[in-house]
Amino acid sequence: MPDTTHPNSWDARAKSSSFFGFTDLPSIEARGTVVLTHGEGPYVFDTEGRRYLDANSGLWNMIAGFDHPGLIRAAQEQYARFPGYHAFFGRMSDQTVMLSEKLAQVSPFESAKTFYTNSGSEANDTMVKMLWFLAGAEGQPERRKILTRGNAYHGVTAVTASMTGKPYNSLFGLPLPGFIHLTCPHYWREGRDGESEAEFTARLAEELEEVIAREGVDTIAGFFAEPVQGAGGVIPPSAGYFDAILPILRRHKIPVIADEVITGLGRTGEMWGCESYDFVPDAIISSKALTAGYFPMGAVILGPELADRLQRATREVEEFPHGFTASGHPVGCAIALAAIDLVETELLDRVRALTPSFEAGLARLAEHPHIGEARSRGLMGALEAVRDKETKAPWDGDLSVSERIANTCTDHGLICRPLGQAVVLCPAFIMTEAQMAEMFEKLGAALEEVFDGLT
Amino acid sequence: MPDTTHPNSWDARAKSSSFFGFTDLPSIEARGTVVLTHGEGPYVFDTEGRRYLDANSGLWNMIAGFDHPGLIRAAQEQYARFPGYHAFFGRMSDQTVMLSEKLAQVSPFESAKTFYTNSGSEANDTMVKMLWFLAGAEGQPERRKILTRGNAYHGVTAVTASMTGKPYNSLFGLPLPGFIHLTCPHYWREGRDGESEAEFTARLAEELEEVIAREGVDTIAGFFAEPVQGAGGVIPPSAGYFDAILPILRRHKIPVIADEVITGLGRTGEMWGCESYDFVPDAIISSKALTAGYFPMGAVILGPELADRLQRATREVEEFPHGFTASGHPVGCAIALAAIDLVETELLDRVRALTPSFEAGLARLAEHPHIGEARSRGLMGALEAVRDKETKAPWDGDLSVSERIANTCTDHGLICRPLGQAVVLCPAFIMTEAQMAEMFEKLGAALEEVFDGLT
Repeated sequence: MPDTTHPNSWDARAKSSSFFGFTDLPSIEARGTVVLTHGEGPYVFDTEGRRYLDANSGLWNMIAGFDHPGLIRAAQEQYARFPGYHAFFGRMSDQTVMLSEKLAQVSPFESAKTFYTNSGSEANDTMVKMLWFLAGAEGQPERRKILTRGNAYHGVTAVTASMTGKPYNSLFGLPLPGFIHLTCPHYWREGRDGESEAEFTARLAEELEEVIAREGVDTIAGFFAEPVQGAGGVIPPSAGYFDAILPILRRHKIPVIADEVITGLGRTGEMWGCESYDFVPDAIISSKALTAGYFPMGAVILGPELADRLQRATREVEEFPHGFTASGHPVGCAIALAAIDLVETELLDRVRALTPSFEAGLARLAEHPHIGEARSRGLMGALEAVRDKETKAPWDGDLSVSERIANTCTDHGLICRPLGQAVVLCPAFIMTEAQMAEMFEKLGAALEEVFDGLT
Repeated sequence: MPDTTHPNSWDARAKSSSFFGFTDLPSIEARGTVVLTHGEGPYVFDTEGRRYLDANSGLWNMIAGFDHPGLIRAAQEQYARFPGYHAFFGRMSDQTVMLSEKLAQVSPFESAKTFYTNSGSEANDTMVKMLWFLAGAEGQPERRKILTRGNAYHGVTAVTASMTGKPYNSLFGLPLPGFIHLTCPHYWREGRDGESEAEFTARLAEELEEVIAREGVDTIAGFFAEPVQGAGGVIPPSAGYFDAILPILRRHKIPVIADEVITGLGRTGEMWGCESYDFVPDAIISSKALTAGYFPMGAVILGPELADRLQRATREVEEFPHGFTASGHPVGCAIALAAIDLVETELLDRVRALTPSFEAGLARLAEHPHIGEARSRGLMGALEAVRDKETKAPWDGDLSVSERIANTCTDHGLICRPLGQAVVLCPAFIMTEAQMAEMFEKLGAALEEVFDGLT
């Protein structure tokens, strides 16, 4: 436990000058800040020399671990070559051009045009602005509503938080009007008594038809979906979900945007999550693994139809008046080129090779009487804690059960993430089988310890 | 001019895979993309080996030029040490803690807490969410309107574009409701016939009072202002402007946010633009020069009162549910520490030393019969082109006069930025007097060439 008494302790220094986001304040008040200095493979080390196996890959993003020599070299070499430029006014770096070509090549599209941002939030926000721009240019200015799902996570700007289907956004007076959340496609939690999974999926497709009819098809700008919901608690869609809803969206000519911030670049065992569910969207939002977490970067990858419509609309007004200062930063692009190459030549195979032991480890822990569901796709998974396995009744919220599990893990040198009453695992793709075993062993011990204390 | 005919030319490759933002499409269709490979001091080089003196410092941000050894080393060393982490869940890197301490120290506040983002857009968007969060927590959920000014530039997310006072945002159906734009404090353009500058300033203060009364003080969440408007065309406020409006905002307890994305870290000749105009805001938004353009980063620096109120409001709900994956990235923080040190020890003095020749150069070009106004503060300046100097009548918009000037400059190896009918200059702080002379000489020749062709 960090020394929180000394005014010059790292904990005291962090608290005096930081405004913490996405941090449980009671936890850091009781336990102190963890200040990290370096990493080795999937491990990170704090200022006290303690080592943690990070089962989150940072925030789903550091797929190649915390000291990958190839990525470090790509960054260092580009700093020596050209350490910064923008992509405005028809100027951009050579790295930016090369990355756009590479993204077109690895995308599921026949051709693609990329627009860069600094984060997934900015990329989703940009995509909404692109759809609104199209609506205006194509003479349908009322086509502005955005469809997403409950438990979706699309970012934290005011507009992308409005797309995010999490109750905490009401603290900001969000969502803004016109952001509509459909039912989360989570059969285990949202399925009704006696409803089969196929019936559940069919009900969600009907709901989509009803919402389109109720709102008016001409008022809907687009539909955004994570192929597997990530920060909602790792929720793969119910069986047949995308097969059921995509024809409806296509029939109504509603653009389909795959938010692949978490699923993109290998996490699900295919290059893109949409490939794991056999569909081609109209645009892909990428971030996180795009630079393996070594640089802030997001990308809107436009498929041919949206790219053409946007290009046509832009030509009429001569300019698409949108862009971020660091859009297409040469260092970020050089790192992304190296990261994609690494995924293609090495890491995608690793994900596929590791998935069986990941699934087996989750299944083993799911035998516990207080684990209600284990769910996963590729190397993203979650274990949902329950008070009662039969009724699926959750624990009393005041018990902060998932925070207890995560904090107990931290005490034993394992970082994993509490999300609602679930614990999320999304290991780095470079993990060894031995590290995978360590992860499940430590998590299993923490589960026993916490549940023993609660019952 | 780049070779645009070959399908493998850099221009063709860029066009096939990029969706261009903030780019005049007719210019790149006629002239091709400029693809850059490296830099030396304030110069950049394209794929054809052509050299350009970048009078924009990239996008106001690359204050130390394009190959600064100290900043490159800071980046490379941190990549070797710890190439990425986040700042969620009470964990963060040591570099993040050190940067927050440093920002508190160099800020005009007695104490400060920092929240990191990846851009100025995200930082302004975050600040709006903080004000909305406070409004809800303090029992005033209707306190949501945001005041900014005409020609303000606060970013491109849907909400920060709504704060930006530029007509092009109507193409996206923006601003959203509740974003109110006061008159731009530009006396030369907005002053009425026979109105003195003092009368103009007094009128803007009255307008502010009227808007607060009309909207209802309890509906206003905050007032955002760039100390010198940047992307609006480098507009220093009219004499006495901040002295006139701040007491009104204070009396009505409306938080004052200084958007120092461009002005911060030395550009105006003081560390912060608010110091140049002698006021202390409630929070500062920083980006751009914060990392000298070597990394995407933004920061919300909260002064003590806002920090305390936000901390109190957060404690009640246990968590501030907001944050970006790369918030407080260790490499960005290490670079920012080096950049701030460079500004403190070296570059702020350079800005002050260069300002007299910068002002003299602008004044010399302002003698031209088609330059209506030269305006500047520190090392940010603009020359406003006019058809008629007496009446201030602008050129016909179809002539694209500032694009012509900028394109002619580019042909002569100088990059400067067209904004409306102005041309903007914001040189790197590391420029030599000889480079400054080269900048004005090339710009002067381009002005002659373009105006000769128009008259």
